[in-house]
Order: sequence, then structure tokens, then C-alpha cells
Amino acid sequence: MVEYIGELLGTMILIALGVGVVASANLQKGYGKGSNWLYISLGWGFAVTFGVYVSSFIGSQGHLNPAITIAFAMFGLFPKNLVLGYVIAQFIGAFLGAALVAIHFHTHFEASHNPEEGNSVGVFGSGPSIPNPLFNFLSELIATFVFVYVLLNLGDFTEGLKPLIVGLLITSVGISLGSTTGYALNPARDFGPRLAYQVLPIPNKSDANWGYAWVPIVGPTVGAILACVLFKAV
Amino acid sequence: MVEYIGELLGTMILIALGVGVVASANLQKGYGKGSNWLYISLGWGFAVTFGVYVSSFIGSQGHLNPAITIAFAMFGLFPKNLVLGYVIAQFIGAFLGAALVAIHFHTHFEASHNPEEGNSVGVFGSGPSIPNPLFNFLSELIATFVFVYVLLNLGDFTEGLKPLIVGLLITSVGISLGSTTGYALNPARDFGPRLAYQVLPIPNKSDANWGYAWVPIVGPTVGAILACVLFKAV
Amino acid sequence: MVEYIGELLGTMILIALGVGVVASANLQKGYGKGSNWLYISLGWGFAVTFGVYVSSFIGSQGHLNPAITIAFAMFGLFPKNLVLGYVIAQFIGAFLGAALVAIHFHTHFEASHNPEEGNSVGVFGSGPSIPNPLFNFLSELIATFVFVYVLLNLGDFTEGLKPLIVGLLITSVGISLGSTTGYALNPARDFGPRLAYQVLPIPNKSDANWGYAWVPIVGPTVGAILACVLFKAV
Amino acid sequence: MVEYIGELLGTMILIALGVGVVASANLQKGYGKGSNWLYISLGWGFAVTFGVYVSSFIGSQGHLNPAITIAFAMFGLFPKNLVLGYVIAQFIGAFLGAALVAIHFHTHFEASHNPEEGNSVGVFGSGPSIPNPLFNFLSELIATFVFVYVLLNLGDFTEGLKPLIVGLLITSVGISLGSTTGYALNPARDFGPRLAYQVLPIPNKSDANWGYAWVPIVGPTVGAILACVLFKAV
Repeated sequence: MVEYIGELLGTMILIALGVGVVASANLQKGYGKGSNWLYISLGWGFAVTFGVYVSSFIGSQGHLNPAITIAFAMFGLFPKNLVLGYVIAQFIGAFLGAALVAIHFHTHFEASHNPEEGNSVGVFGSGPSIPNPLFNFLSELIATFVFVYVLLNLGDFTEGLKPLIVGLLITSVGISLGSTTGYALNPARDFGPRLAYQVLPIPNKSDANWGYAWVPIVGPTVGAILACVLFKAV
Repeated sequence: MVEYIGELLGTMILIALGVGVVASANLQKGYGKGSNWLYISLGWGFAVTFGVYVSSFIGSQGHLNPAITIAFAMFGLFPKNLVLGYVIAQFIGAFLGAALVAIHFHTHFEASHNPEEGNSVGVFGSGPSIPNPLFNFLSELIATFVFVYVLLNLGDFTEGLKPLIVGLLITSVGISLGSTTGYALNPARDFGPRLAYQVLPIPNKSDANWGYAWVPIVGPTVGAILACVLFKAV
Repeated sequence: MVEYIGELLGTMILIALGVGVVASANLQKGYGKGSNWLYISLGWGFAVTFGVYVSSFIGSQGHLNPAITIAFAMFGLFPKNLVLGYVIAQFIGAFLGAALVAIHFHTHFEASHNPEEGNSVGVFGSGPSIPNPLFNFLSELIATFVFVYVLLNLGDFTEGLKPLIVGLLITSVGISLGSTTGYALNPARDFGPRLAYQVLPIPNKSDANWGYAWVPIVGPTVGAILACVLFKAV
Repeated sequence: MVEYIGELLGTMILIALGVGVVASANLQKGYGKGSNWLYISLGWGFAVTFGVYVSSFIGSQGHLNPAITIAFAMFGLFPKNLVLGYVIAQFIGAFLGAALVAIHFHTHFEASHNPEEGNSVGVFGSGPSIPNPLFNFLSELIATFVFVYVLLNLGDFTEGLKPLIVGLLITSVGISLGSTTGYALNPARDFGPRLAYQVLPIPNKSDANWGYAWVPIVGPTVGAILACVLFKAV
């Protein structure tokens, strides 16, 4: 049980910091308004670092990501009987983290009247810079493949200062391969906040773009599986 | 006694570097004029890193923050009899650090004639981007809650390279959750420099905005206490 | 054999992340469009960090660079009989990494109609900001000399967190000495992606500028050799 | 003797990377043209990191700075009989590093016709943003005091990953306290490159501003001594 709590709280911290950095860069009137892609990629990197610290300190394996949990379980890198609990904890944690951001930036959502002013589902979920289902899917697949394959070659990524390295890996994938689709890399990271945007009373909100929601679920899962295939083959 | 000196000097370094980075970004004619929120958040992160190194090397526990000292003492994580000494040392150190910045940037305060030119209490204390007592309070509470909760899950944060991780945590909270209120997170960080701005002979200074001063005292204290509640519950 | 695979996959990761960051900053419509030289230098730094992690985890020595492999072998720092295999693996890996980037950014190449819109061989290979064969050669020589000489003074750069330090060294050389020629530092890093740009069906592509291709092959090789000369002399 | 060589080569690397980053940001037509103060402060930070790695690997104590060598010797933290050799090595190394930059950016100096186009002594030496002898002196004194006092509280700064922490300390001091005078912090860092600018055949060069040269010699030396006073008192 404590493992699931670790996974839940780690994912909550991940999303509070990760969605928070996108809100900072996009919503009106905050001190971070107009910040660039490096800012956002650093924010997501640190978010993962501290999510991994929290979850592994409590006792989970710090996946924070259903694509990793599922792929690792398929290849004997994680016990199959824990998969369901981990994945549920990840989705709940992601929703809670997004809810914290909704409260934190409430007055900034009020000041941002429409998507042009930064108030869109893109603050919570991911979205493509050039909509194209096939290539958006391939982008999520390739970015997650690179991320998970490198992760597998880091050894135990929860040990010592390794959570910092994992965070920098996320920043690296973000600035190098994340600018096409916003690099979800993680079904919970996209679905949880997207759902929060849909159901929470956020001022001036617009459409949650559910038509795109399959891409950051399927792309990362396939990418993580392919990374495990290569890892096992080598 | 040496512990209190460590806490005082560590907080002095924290504020010299932290308030210094805000002065660099805001005052006229310096090479950092116009720098963005990432610059400021990196500056505060490094400020904490080196404040922690100094204070822990001398022999204190490197809190540099009355909210942490008080919350840790309430939950048995710090000896109660040291609280008063730590807190006094933190406020004195913060004042001294701000005084160093006032001297360092003296000619830049002279060149900055009003708040529009960057010469405002915001260089020394924190201030909200959208004034709203309730949500400013909640922002300080949530940001400090995330900061202190993660901090508690880092283990001994003064050991080895951990002060770097703590600094990056401050940078992370800054870019993700700091753009609403300027993320004081720390009563001494706000009150000490605000008092320095009030009493020191700084050229062209304006109002110290004491009406806001309760927010960065109460918000962080409640946030730190809630973080300890969650930590103990888990 | 596993060593060669490590070198191949490490170089593939290096180039996927490194060429990816240049594509992000240059091609139309991505979230990183217009990013600056710091962004690109950080991207290449992280690319090397994770290339070294991957290759050394698998079992190679993490050179990812024929100039290093050849220079080290000349001075007894690497077994001569492995040179050919390493170098071939590096070139193949570089080509594969560039191919991943070509797929990943396919729709962004479509949206970028000419070199003015960022679609040039400069996304894949390097190019000088002021064309001048002699000084471009000297720039590559000096930058690689500094890079390799520092690298030799880091001890075993694949151990522990050292791959992070190597990556930061690349970022450092990039921001300090890379702005003249785009700092190839590495024959495989330039030739592999340049060839990929030539032969792959990339939309709207222009000239591969083969006339410049000798500079990032010869300059880095001579620079790496001179670094070994100084290292051995000291 | 090997100690002096370490100090010389470490300072050469420091200045090649440090003056290089200023040249990148200031001279015409390079890819880093127009880069900001964060870029320059990161560049100097990395420059120190790798200067310390090189010098300490060879066998010196990695001061790279006469102010540190002299102050440490005065307070029994460094053997007095090595001071002269260290200081001479530091000045020679600084001159050589600046010479490498002059060659590296030769065509960029040619393309920059005057100080307005970035070709000034400020690329090589430091200079104040608001000229004022007293406060420029105080700025160098305070910045160096903070730098050296923190350095003394880091323990052995050449060990393990500590050179990275020292580099980040330089970046921190740069963004927080360096924007007033360009933070020389180091007599050799300023004098060596200033002399190189004076005597080397650099295209389109202007005045070397020797009238200012005493500030970055005296200010850092006094600041380093005061830091040792406080360190010994605590």
C-alpha cells in the first residue's frame, strides 16, 4: 500500500510542478508570462526529479508513468501484480497535482480570457504544434523510446543523485524532441490533467480537445515497449 | 551559539545572493537589466544552495527559514529550545544580507528613479503579480507546502551534494509555482529585506508595502506545517 | 562486438538528441522555434551526457567520436585493434540518429520551405558563421583541443556522475568557443547527419554543402591529437 | 614545478572559456551574438569548473586567482613559499588563454569595427556598468568576499564533483552580484586578458582602459582577505 501512496504522491508533485511551469509561461500577468521552451523543459525536468525523490523515498519505484510501469512489467522488469495499483495511483496523483495548479493560478485563469491569452487545455494536457495524427503519434513514440531507452541504461535511477540525472534527461528530451507535440511521454501526465481541466471549475476554460487524447496514451506506451525490446535485445 | 552564527551567516549569504539577483534583473544600467523569471529563479536556487553550504559547514541545520524551523519543531523534527535562537538569527542574517545588496547596488538605485524604473520594495521583499489576499495567501501556502514536503523526502539535505538539490528545488518551485506571488516561502526572506528597504538610506526608494507583509509570513508557515502533517501521516 | 554496439547506440542517442535540438530551434512551427545558442549548447551537452551513459552501460568506452578514438589510440590510451570497429560504429550510429530526427520532424520540414525558414544542412551538419577555411579549421582545432584536453583531466569520464560533467563540458565549449563554426568537435557528428540530409527523403531540403565537410573532420582530429600531445607532455 | 604548470594550464583553460563566452556574446556574426548575462555567467561558471578540474588533476590547488592565493597564504591556508610561483603561473596562464581566444575569434574581431559593434576591451577585461571608482571597488570587494567566504565553507573544493559546485558558485555570484562591474573577482582574470588585448594584433581594437585596471586587482584582493578574516573568526 505504501508503494501506491509513494507513486500517487510522487505523481502529484510531478504534475503540480510540471503543469505549474506551463501555467506560469502561458497565463496572463504572472512573472513567468512569455517564458520559452527551455523554461518549460527545465520545469518538467525538475518536476520529474522531485517526483522521483518523493515517490522513491516513500517506497515506490518512482515510475510516475503508466507507459513505464506497463512496459517494464511486460519484460520482467517489474512485478505484474503491482501494475494495476501503480497505474491507478499515477492517474489519481496526476489529477490531484492538476487540481493544486488550478487553485494556485485561479486569479491568473480569471485574467486569461481565452486560448489566445494562454487559457487552453494546453496548460494541462499536451497538444501538437502541427496537428497530424500519424506524425504526432510517431513523435510521441520516438521521444518516449529515446527517454525510456536511456533510462534503462542509467541503472537504478532512484539512487543517490540519479533523480537529478533523470530530470535532466526529461529536459533533454524536451528541448531536443519535445517541441513537436509537447512531449507527454506519459499517459497519466496527459489524461489526468486533461480530465481535471474538463471537470474542475476553472475560469474562462475552453475545449479539452479529447480527440487528441489517444496520442499521448498510445504513442508513449508503444515507445516504452520498443525501448524495452531494444534493451533486452542488447 | 555556533549554530546560531551558522544560521545567521547562511541566511545572510542567502539574501545577499537572492535579493542581489532581483536587483540585477530590475535596476537600471546593470548588465543583468531585463533578465527574466528563469534568471531570478536560478539566482534564488543558487542562493539557497550556498546558504545551506555555509550554515551547515559552520554547524547549524541550514534551515535559513523560520517557517521550517517552527514547523519542524512542532513535529519533533527539531529541538524546541533552539527555535527562538534560530529564528532571531535568520531575521538578523536576512537584514544583513539585504544591507550588503543596498551597498553593492548603490549607484544603480541612484540611476533608478522610481518603481517603473525597477526601484521598488519588490527588489527586497516579495509582491503579488495579481493582488488578492486570499489567493496570494493560498499561493504562498501551496508553493511552500510543495517545497517543504519535497525537502522532507530528500533525507539529510545538508549532506554531500544535497545542497545543490535543495537549490534546484527552489528554482523548480520558482519557475513552476513562484510566478504568482514571487514565492517568498520564508518569513525571514521577506520581512528582513523589507525592513532593510524601509530603514536603510536607499536612493529614490518608494513605499515598503507593509500591508502585504503578513502574506509571506503566514502563508509559508501554514504551508510548512501542512507539509509536516502529510509527511508524518505517510 | 558488444562494445561496438554500445558505441553505435550511444552515438545514435547523441545525434538524435543533438541534431534534434538544432531542428527544434530552427524549423518552423515547433514550440522551440527561435531558441538561442544557449538552448542549442545545452541540448548538445545533454546529448553527450546520455550518449555516454548508454554506450558505457552497454560496455564501450563512450567515445562517440572518431577524433577521440584515433587520438587516444595514437597515444596508447586506447587499443589500436578496436579503432576501426569503433569508428564504423560511430558513423553508423550518427546516421541512424539523424534518420530518427528526420522522421520525428517530418511535418516541420514540410512547413519549412527553404534555408531562410530554417530548413538547411545546418540542422544536420555544422557550418561556419563567417566562412573562412583557415580560421574555421583553427576554430574547430582550438575548440576540440580545449574539449579533449579537459576531458583527459577528468579521469574516467564514464564513471558515476561524470557523464554529466562531460555533457556540461560540451555545453561550456559550445557557449564559449562554439559560436564561430557550430562546434562539430567530432567527424562522425558532422559527416553522418550530413550524409543523412543528402540521401534521406527530407521535404524541401537544399544543398548539403560538401565543400565544408573536410573542416569538421580534419580540425577536430588535429585538435584531439594536440590535446593528447600536451597531456602526455605534462 | 608540476604544481605551477597545473596552475598555469588551469588558468589558461579558465580564461579561454571565460573570455570566449564574452566574445561569443559580444562580437558580430557569431551564433551567440546578443546572448544575455545568464549566458555569460554560466560560461564563466563552467570555465572555473573546468579550470579547477585541469589544475587539480595535474597537481596544483586550483586557485587560478592571485587574490585567493595571497589571502590564503596570509591566513595560513596555503604555504607562503609557493605564492610567487602560483601568482606568476596564473598571470601567464591568463595571458595564454586570452591569446587562444584572439586567434579563435579573429574573423569576428575583423567583422566588429568598434566598441559599439562589441569590439572593446570589455571582451577581455572587466568594466563597470556605472563608472564610479568607490562603488566599483566596493562591488568587486563585496562580490569577492561572498565568493571566497562561501568557497571556504565548501571544504576541499577540488574533490569529486566539487569543481562543479565551485563553478555554480561563480555563476551565482555572476547573476546576483556581477552585473555592476562584470565581476572580475580575480586580478589575473582581468590583468592577463587586458594586457593581451593591448599587445596582440587584434583587428579593430580600441582602448584598453588601464585607468580602471586597479579596481579588479585591489577590490578582489581586499575582499578575499576579509572573507578569510570572517572565516578564521567563526
